[in-house]
Amino acid sequence: MTYRAPVEDYLFLLTHVVGLDQVTATDKFAEATPDMASAILTEAGRMCEDVLAPLQRAGDTHPAVLENGVVRTSPGFAEGYQAIADGGWVAISADPAYGGMGLPLCLTTAVNEMMSGACLSLQLNPLMTQGQIEALENHASDEIRQTYLPKLVSGEWCGTMNLTEAQAGSDVGALRSKAERNDDGSYSITGQKIFISWGDNDFTGNVCHLVLARLPDGGPGTKGISLFIVPKFIPDAEGNPGERNSLSVVSLEHKMGLHGSPTAVMQYDGAKGWLIGEEHDGIRCMFTMMNNARLGVGVQGIGAAEGAYQHALAYALERKQGRTPLHDGAGTILDHANVRRMMATMKADAFAARAIALANAVAIDMAHATGSSDWQARAAFLTPITKGFGTEIGINLANLGMQVHGGMGYIEETGAAQFLRDVRVTAIYEGTNGIQSMDLVGRKLADGGEAAAVLLDEIEEQAEAARQSLPDLAEPVWQATESLREATEWMVAQDNMNDRFAGSVPFLRAFARVLGGHYHLAAALAEGGDGSRTRLARFYIRALLPQYAAYLAHATLGATDLYALTEEDLGA
Amino acid sequence: MTYRAPVEDYLFLLTHVVGLDQVTATDKFAEATPDMASAILTEAGRMCEDVLAPLQRAGDTHPAVLENGVVRTSPGFAEGYQAIADGGWVAISADPAYGGMGLPLCLTTAVNEMMSGACLSLQLNPLMTQGQIEALENHASDEIRQTYLPKLVSGEWCGTMNLTEAQAGSDVGALRSKAERNDDGSYSITGQKIFISWGDNDFTGNVCHLVLARLPDGGPGTKGISLFIVPKFIPDAEGNPGERNSLSVVSLEHKMGLHGSPTAVMQYDGAKGWLIGEEHDGIRCMFTMMNNARLGVGVQGIGAAEGAYQHALAYALERKQGRTPLHDGAGTILDHANVRRMMATMKADAFAARAIALANAVAIDMAHATGSSDWQARAAFLTPITKGFGTEIGINLANLGMQVHGGMGYIEETGAAQFLRDVRVTAIYEGTNGIQSMDLVGRKLADGGEAAAVLLDEIEEQAEAARQSLPDLAEPVWQATESLREATEWMVAQDNMNDRFAGSVPFLRAFARVLGGHYHLAAALAEGGDGSRTRLARFYIRALLPQYAAYLAHATLGATDLYALTEEDLGA
Repeated sequence: MTYRAPVEDYLFLLTHVVGLDQVTATDKFAEATPDMASAILTEAGRMCEDVLAPLQRAGDTHPAVLENGVVRTSPGFAEGYQAIADGGWVAISADPAYGGMGLPLCLTTAVNEMMSGACLSLQLNPLMTQGQIEALENHASDEIRQTYLPKLVSGEWCGTMNLTEAQAGSDVGALRSKAERNDDGSYSITGQKIFISWGDNDFTGNVCHLVLARLPDGGPGTKGISLFIVPKFIPDAEGNPGERNSLSVVSLEHKMGLHGSPTAVMQYDGAKGWLIGEEHDGIRCMFTMMNNARLGVGVQGIGAAEGAYQHALAYALERKQGRTPLHDGAGTILDHANVRRMMATMKADAFAARAIALANAVAIDMAHATGSSDWQARAAFLTPITKGFGTEIGINLANLGMQVHGGMGYIEETGAAQFLRDVRVTAIYEGTNGIQSMDLVGRKLADGGEAAAVLLDEIEEQAEAARQSLPDLAEPVWQATESLREATEWMVAQDNMNDRFAGSVPFLRAFARVLGGHYHLAAALAEGGDGSRTRLARFYIRALLPQYAAYLAHATLGATDLYALTEEDLGA
Repeated sequence: MTYRAPVEDYLFLLTHVVGLDQVTATDKFAEATPDMASAILTEAGRMCEDVLAPLQRAGDTHPAVLENGVVRTSPGFAEGYQAIADGGWVAISADPAYGGMGLPLCLTTAVNEMMSGACLSLQLNPLMTQGQIEALENHASDEIRQTYLPKLVSGEWCGTMNLTEAQAGSDVGALRSKAERNDDGSYSITGQKIFISWGDNDFTGNVCHLVLARLPDGGPGTKGISLFIVPKFIPDAEGNPGERNSLSVVSLEHKMGLHGSPTAVMQYDGAKGWLIGEEHDGIRCMFTMMNNARLGVGVQGIGAAEGAYQHALAYALERKQGRTPLHDGAGTILDHANVRRMMATMKADAFAARAIALANAVAIDMAHATGSSDWQARAAFLTPITKGFGTEIGINLANLGMQVHGGMGYIEETGAAQFLRDVRVTAIYEGTNGIQSMDLVGRKLADGGEAAAVLLDEIEEQAEAARQSLPDLAEPVWQATESLREATEWMVAQDNMNDRFAGSVPFLRAFARVLGGHYHLAAALAEGGDGSRTRLARFYIRALLPQYAAYLAHATLGATDLYALTEEDLGA
């Protein structure tokens, strides 16, 4: 299993498509020059290629196991994690005050994608820690920050997120875990959490759990929930791991994939925790972090897509079957039109999703650096699209990658199937893609569609400007954007949210398709309308972009037809 | 894991949509009345619900294993197989002269779908036997038929198909297995075959392999290949299993799914075989069988889709999360618009695919019963569509079914993931879906598009006739058909086959989408334009049918853009 870090692609996108220059122009990120970006990504890329990629199969064939209450991780994962920590790759965007590099999230995004492409199950560990660091930076007390952040940033400790309970999945407000105030200012946490990614491991000195629980005077629903940090080992006076806390791993799930990442049922029996943010304000604190975590999960999908692409390409370049239309009939299967269609689709879609994710990260960076509410709105709008489209691309491309392999794709030793099994969960966790789409057409259009309109204007401006030089690419993008604008206005006009939700997933897909066309066009323009990226853009815009129309037709149907189908009609 | 046989759906489709009456009107199938169909399907359905469905999980969790050269099948599979054999369900369409019931293939198709939905991995066994029976009925000598057919039809023995070798997958002509003539009229077969489904088992008295191999004077490519039957135990003078043949199972594959079905590497070391058909004519003999096997595999996809649908529906009807828009906010997740969208999509697509498969089977029955070349052409045209669309629907719906389950969908014990892992191979084996699409735009349009045009005429006729009564359903179907006709004519006009192949998969998808609209419209008309099936048709036609346009845009691009992308562009 080889993996080549697509560093050149990130650098091209950052410098020519998504506007790293704007980020570098801010005081906060002045150091993040293209040279710096190149150095960072090259070094991270090397680590992913040399250290992480070889762990991918071991994580699958030797899953993490629970033995006598102790999680034993997959062979090599401890060393892989150490390489991530030693390189400083756990959290390069973290505050330098706590040992971070203070680099923009767009670089973290590229690094996260590479780690995901090389070994998704291990990368999930630092991704969780990144979220925890962000939550603590934004909401924790000075004391908590001083105690936890340096060790989380360095990778000495790691972090988890504990939201879900058996009866509280998408409906997090239904949670039942309890918190009680102790006399010393700490809290006692009791309850059971499920689906806790990397709930424990045998390679970090501590595991710090962010846990949502309800105080006795917390009201019902999401507004009565508080957030706590609950460490496996309670830090002593020097901040070193001390007394074992009253929490345990009850069991690990047997999942379809991502076997290298232990997914735990966690039991808290009056475990000692410390409040993060204000009492009853836990959901808001969690949401700060969740937006970036959602970007991070979208990027997991893109990493898996890239990994699956490279894996399929290697096979297509080696496998010979039948007479081919090129190379005097003696070429590889890559020369067969249908295989080339699959490979082109994979490459074009991975590029589109990557551009969206990096643009999303740039928007977050600009919001951080400038405090601009416009950038904030842009970031918020793109996040569910990155998460939904990135993970769906991950699944679709892993599926295509298997197909390119033919019969070998179904044999586990080939490694193609693992990409699909591993990436499948990304469309589910951190808010299902359905939840993402509802966020997009609900909260993210609650401004009356202003953030969407600004984005659509930008897309049309570029398409207008490209009409002379690249008419065959610019015109379809412009047309698609007009249709998308109408659909967006239709969405905004629906007062019954259910009419929006009935088409929210196809709406998200359509928006992503059009954004993909926009960034492909930008790439073609950046190389002067002639070259490799233009050829890929042409394929995307002619072969894949047209899907937007079907999605929009579905997106704007409203809920009537759907609810006309009774439970009995559906077979209940 | 429960499974409810959708008998009512088959009977409705057979009697109101795909024309069982035409089949019953022939001498050959005069007995296949709706009452007979109902009795047959009800009984088969009961067996699937009671006996096969409980085996589904066991096949996954306790895969078939090879121990000292002997295949041990999953717990309960021997009993399950016995129930299939005892009920006569191995081959109800087989010739009564050999113990079959001589029933039309449209009934076999429904029975196969039910067995697939209940337990795909076990159903693959009789599906292989059905293919072998067909090959022997059509091409074997009297002696071979007398010896093998009664035991295959009764299920006492079973059959396999041996085409693939390591270097010969889609390119079957590259095979290297050798056959030599023996003095007694038999042949000695030597070579290694891979991906042999149900290559061995511990519950039938014999395993009969149909093997493709090349005689010393067989030319290169597919035209020099001959077909042999090579039994595990050589029948003695009384036709009972005698001497052990020189063949062995080398190993079983470790697959993504379908663990209950042992996929073998088979070694033939001068194994004794008997010629089927003429020397060097093996591919033609194999193709007779392969068409129906392709229909059978498409139906496997539909069975898995139905199983996944029922599984997801049960969960959606039980799981509560958040306030719902129905039932005063206290409903299940089925009441959430996005979940209902997923369930409606699954139901509408499964119905469309099922209708296509049954129409395909009816065409085969009519061709058999009447010898009509028109029906033959219809059957041939629909076969790659059933295979490609049926299996793709299987994958897509299993994927959606997981999504409906949220986090539980990723946990293996839930059973949702197994549908996806199991069905994934159906898009690969029996000719990958890429091969199906190339067959469709190549061989199946080699008549200048005549068979396609006749079918398109029928679709438009029905749509025309429905314009008054169901304008909102009829008009979109008519429009889509016009576009499809243009695209079909475009395909036919391409002399460079590569221009066809570049868009063959989206073309197949578009054709299936339109056919789905046609059969949904027929269903709506059959119930007078008001009722459950009309509501489902409306959802399909408004929400899903529009995809045809994007597919056709892609289908008619030709190969230029695709081959403009060089190997280097793709990252080689």
